[in-house]
Amino acid sequence: MIRVGDTHVLCTASLEARVPPFLRNTGKGWVTAEYGMLPRSTGSRMRREAAAGKQGGRTVEIQRLIGRSLRAGIDLVALGERQITVDCDVIQADGGTRCAAITGGWVALRLAVNKLLKAGDITTDPLMDPVAAVSCGIYAGQPVLDLDYPEDSEAGVDGNFVLCGPKLIEVQMSAEGSTFTRDQMNQLMDLADKGVSELVAAQLQATA
Amino acid sequence: MIRVGDTHVLCTASLEARVPPFLRNTGKGWVTAEYGMLPRSTGSRMRREAAAGKQGGRTVEIQRLIGRSLRAGIDLVALGERQITVDCDVIQADGGTRCAAITGGWVALRLAVNKLLKAGDITTDPLMDPVAAVSCGIYAGQPVLDLDYPEDSEAGVDGNFVLCGPKLIEVQMSAEGSTFTRDQMNQLMDLADKGVSELVAAQLQATA
Amino acid sequence: MIRVGDTHVLCTASLEARVPPFLRNTGKGWVTAEYGMLPRSTGSRMRREAAAGKQGGRTVEIQRLIGRSLRAGIDLVALGERQITVDCDVIQADGGTRCAAITGGWVALRLAVNKLLKAGDITTDPLMDPVAAVSCGIYAGQPVLDLDYPEDSEAGVDGNFVLCGPKLIEVQMSAEGSTFTRDQMNQLMDLADKGVSELVAAQLQATA
Amino acid sequence: MIRVGDTHVLCTASLEARVPPFLRNTGKGWVTAEYGMLPRSTGSRMRREAAAGKQGGRTVEIQRLIGRSLRAGIDLVALGERQITVDCDVIQADGGTRCAAITGGWVALRLAVNKLLKAGDITTDPLMDPVAAVSCGIYAGQPVLDLDYPEDSEAGVDGNFVLCGPKLIEVQMSAEGSTFTRDQMNQLMDLADKGVSELVAAQLQATA
Amino acid sequence: MIRVGDTHVLCTASLEARVPPFLRNTGKGWVTAEYGMLPRSTGSRMRREAAAGKQGGRTVEIQRLIGRSLRAGIDLVALGERQITVDCDVIQADGGTRCAAITGGWVALRLAVNKLLKAGDITTDPLMDPVAAVSCGIYAGQPVLDLDYPEDSEAGVDGNFVLCGPKLIEVQMSAEGSTFTRDQMNQLMDLADKGVSELVAAQLQATA
Amino acid sequence: MIRVGDTHVLCTASLEARVPPFLRNTGKGWVTAEYGMLPRSTGSRMRREAAAGKQGGRTVEIQRLIGRSLRAGIDLVALGERQITVDCDVIQADGGTRCAAITGGWVALRLAVNKLLKAGDITTDPLMDPVAAVSCGIYAGQPVLDLDYPEDSEAGVDGNFVLCGPKLIEVQMSAEGSTFTRDQMNQLMDLADKGVSELVAAQLQATA
Repeated sequence: MIRVGDTHVLCTASLEARVPPFLRNTGKGWVTAEYGMLPRSTGSRMRREAAAGKQGGRTVEIQRLIGRSLRAGIDLVALGERQITVDCDVIQADGGTRCAAITGGWVALRLAVNKLLKAGDITTDPLMDPVAAVSCGIYAGQPVLDLDYPEDSEAGVDGNFVLCGPKLIEVQMSAEGSTFTRDQMNQLMDLADKGVSELVAAQLQATA
Repeated sequence: MIRVGDTHVLCTASLEARVPPFLRNTGKGWVTAEYGMLPRSTGSRMRREAAAGKQGGRTVEIQRLIGRSLRAGIDLVALGERQITVDCDVIQADGGTRCAAITGGWVALRLAVNKLLKAGDITTDPLMDPVAAVSCGIYAGQPVLDLDYPEDSEAGVDGNFVLCGPKLIEVQMSAEGSTFTRDQMNQLMDLADKGVSELVAAQLQATA
Repeated sequence: MIRVGDTHVLCTASLEARVPPFLRNTGKGWVTAEYGMLPRSTGSRMRREAAAGKQGGRTVEIQRLIGRSLRAGIDLVALGERQITVDCDVIQADGGTRCAAITGGWVALRLAVNKLLKAGDITTDPLMDPVAAVSCGIYAGQPVLDLDYPEDSEAGVDGNFVLCGPKLIEVQMSAEGSTFTRDQMNQLMDLADKGVSELVAAQLQATA
Repeated sequence: MIRVGDTHVLCTASLEARVPPFLRNTGKGWVTAEYGMLPRSTGSRMRREAAAGKQGGRTVEIQRLIGRSLRAGIDLVALGERQITVDCDVIQADGGTRCAAITGGWVALRLAVNKLLKAGDITTDPLMDPVAAVSCGIYAGQPVLDLDYPEDSEAGVDGNFVLCGPKLIEVQMSAEGSTFTRDQMNQLMDLADKGVSELVAAQLQATA
Repeated sequence: MIRVGDTHVLCTASLEARVPPFLRNTGKGWVTAEYGMLPRSTGSRMRREAAAGKQGGRTVEIQRLIGRSLRAGIDLVALGERQITVDCDVIQADGGTRCAAITGGWVALRLAVNKLLKAGDITTDPLMDPVAAVSCGIYAGQPVLDLDYPEDSEAGVDGNFVLCGPKLIEVQMSAEGSTFTRDQMNQLMDLADKGVSELVAAQLQATA
Repeated sequence: MIRVGDTHVLCTASLEARVPPFLRNTGKGWVTAEYGMLPRSTGSRMRREAAAGKQGGRTVEIQRLIGRSLRAGIDLVALGERQITVDCDVIQADGGTRCAAITGGWVALRLAVNKLLKAGDITTDPLMDPVAAVSCGIYAGQPVLDLDYPEDSEAGVDGNFVLCGPKLIEVQMSAEGSTFTRDQMNQLMDLADKGVSELVAAQLQATA
């Protein structure tokens, strides 16, 4: 369970011997993610996706991002031909759920890999630097780290940054009905660097 | 959040001004329920229903039962033309999730109704005796209360009893590939009475 | 075709050599059921489920009940590794369709098993006592057997009882917006015993 | 219930006050049709469309044909702003189910319209000559009327003809992996004329 | 890309080594078709079928017709155990799209087969006479060839004729809310013969 | 129709008087986008999404990006309460289809807005600088503009940049199984600036 401000996300990792068809007999493993929100995680109740009969575009987009991010920080060959599915379920949401899911998902992944190492199923640690993510944006003209929900929904520019140590894995900045300059982009990157280093410290403590 | 043994269910109640079409302009309210399990609530990971594109038959059956049970313990006219949706999400499952959902769902409903009373939106308390449910079954020839998962999956006869004070709301006993006698049915009913009275004490304490 | 009052249900049994995956190479067979209603079987036309794109919760609940009931009255090992699918299609409905489907479904199952015995495909009769079901309820304060549709829709308590000879397979009693006592439950059980013995006589005559 | 050879189709007509949106406030009515087959209507059990989650292409094609055919034989203005839905459910199939459905569907429509006339809801009879349909085809080089299932599945050319008295409503001739000449087309038309006149006699008798 | 009047259809043929299950190890091949319309191919924008979550009845009907028509003009044994899928996507529509799709689909099929012949994968040409289709109808009392969209939507009788040289593959004539005589049917057939011979000339030129 | 290298995308804009519910009576307009690929636009045939029964995650992600990008370059209040839907259909794909769709989509939007201005339906031009997008990535260690498909599928880092004149609308950089540095990010931004200015020249010429 990761808590960032008032956002609480339950992250678990499940190991399977099977890999997706395109990896069979390649010796490589796979990491994938699924994401969901409880109907009452938000201020007003959301419709349950299982009842609606499909996952919305936002859900699909987020779970692809989580999977891609976690894969960038792991050596799939060293993992061996097995799949780890990371489930991220939002219990309470107050902005930045996708970033909390990536950061907490890495902790779940780290613990699952530790078990494999301890059991001797793998001998080399496939994980590199911790993968962590922060959201930041431009709110009322100012760059702000970790937007909470009221800020997030009014921000003109919204960014998500996924890092693996000093390296970048994913940069997404988007303006809804607005634009931004390259200077502002650099300010947000600086904020992100700072935010991620705090998260990494917490991740290392949780998995020590 | 209700915990019965190792079964943990998160129950919340959401109020809406709208009622289903068949109740519009009748002055009567409605209580409905939705039920879900997190993929990793069970020992081995389950497929996410939102990803499968529909709620399974078991989910639909359970959420109909929860709704029916809670409605039997409330005066819908005194509630007035509003709908309360009770969401029950299983975080961890070890048998008896539907009973835990009903028992915890009533607590969420009680708290939501208390708010309406406090705000003066309704003047008469529409809730009657607490609604609580237990599962029991015949395991290795013996009647047992609160089957945990290993017992549940091997029990020849499986029963769910929903009570509202001394009165019955729902009795379900079913034998998978087996049968039972009327005497056994009465023994299970006795066990259920006993189990429910303990739950009611806990419900009253939680909502005092 | 079974007729109980004005309820007419067409029941057929289809034999397949294949069993569901979890039974392959176990030597055990399986009995499953599907249930449907013609759009005009009820007083006012219902929407066709195939057009709606899915089976409703009620349909799923009923076909699970029929399958579970018929399986409780058959020795799946003696049946051998084959599957029998019982289709129950309601041509005309006037209350108690699920009970009529179980009772008629057993007749179809009996005839299908007779063919297997006659052909020498199985040597021991896997069927035990006939499986039959009745609905009863409390209508206008009185316990009543075989509720017809107008009674059914107004009954405060509605029960379905599935028996296999003197033994019980399934007991379901539920109160919609009401409650019942343990005495009333016992009165309904007595009525059910009586109703089932008449149905069994008819089943044995139809399959003699 | 119409029986043509071993094909049995249950046809019913249901009246509704509502018409589809494109006809609202035009004073014109509508006739539409739905078609279904019971899983065991054929020699070997078919998958239930409600379980499959959608109506197959063949079902959709057939119900469009039935609706179009019945509409061609009725004056929708004289019917007034009401909709009649004709349900055709195949209980037992041995070839030519779509033609039996049209022919039997007209009988159900005729009876429904008679009720409206008797009740004084409409004053002019909107129905013209009976609408009836036959299938014919070229089997083993010979034009044949009313192909039964074994003939149908081997016929090189398969035709369906819908007539309204001496006039044509629909002609469909198709060759699966084969071709036909214009002479053969005319021979089939002659056969169809003859077949339809017998059906019309039966329709008039059934609705007299 | 075929252009008939203002109707433009993009037709492509894709070859696969796999055939449908019912043809495996029979030495026979298969030809199938898929059909789609771009949302803006019509005067006012249509809803995208992928967004609606399913192909409409009209689409399914048309792609079955295209597949059936093309199969009637090819020797599936000479094609050998391979499948050709013909995709017909309507870029701009002004009536007669299904006929344009068949006519253009044959050109794509001819070019794909030519490649197989050139590569020596097959030695006998499996294609017979060109398969071409025209729509005609009765508009304002007059038989008309190649109805454009305004004519088509007001025509009382609408016909599609698929020919393979002098032979017929498919004849479909249907009256929406109207009827026609056998004389009119013959006049339309004459028009169709004439129209198809012009298309065949163009097909042969395009594939020379 | 926009052509960038061997990528061809057909873009059209459709105007509707209706806006989505959340904008009704606000005086503001809306721009939305839909995206599709013809099955044969890629080297080997893709499955048709309408046949699969839903739009894939990639399609949903792309059409949300196109809509968001175009909205950032238009004053929705000046557009007035009307909706413009931009359809982008990929006829032939060789990398960078989402960028081509945005760039071509703006041209379609420009032409649609010109019509509104010419007709006097709006008096102020709601469009700002042209919106254009380029993809670039790091391929074999080198930053490259406009990756074609073979480069794209092997690139370690893949970026999409949407600009509106000198301002940024969206920056997406992602590494699949790899990472990148901040320096590399800046090099890609420089390339993007250069690429977009060429596209803008072409856009202005096409809409002059």
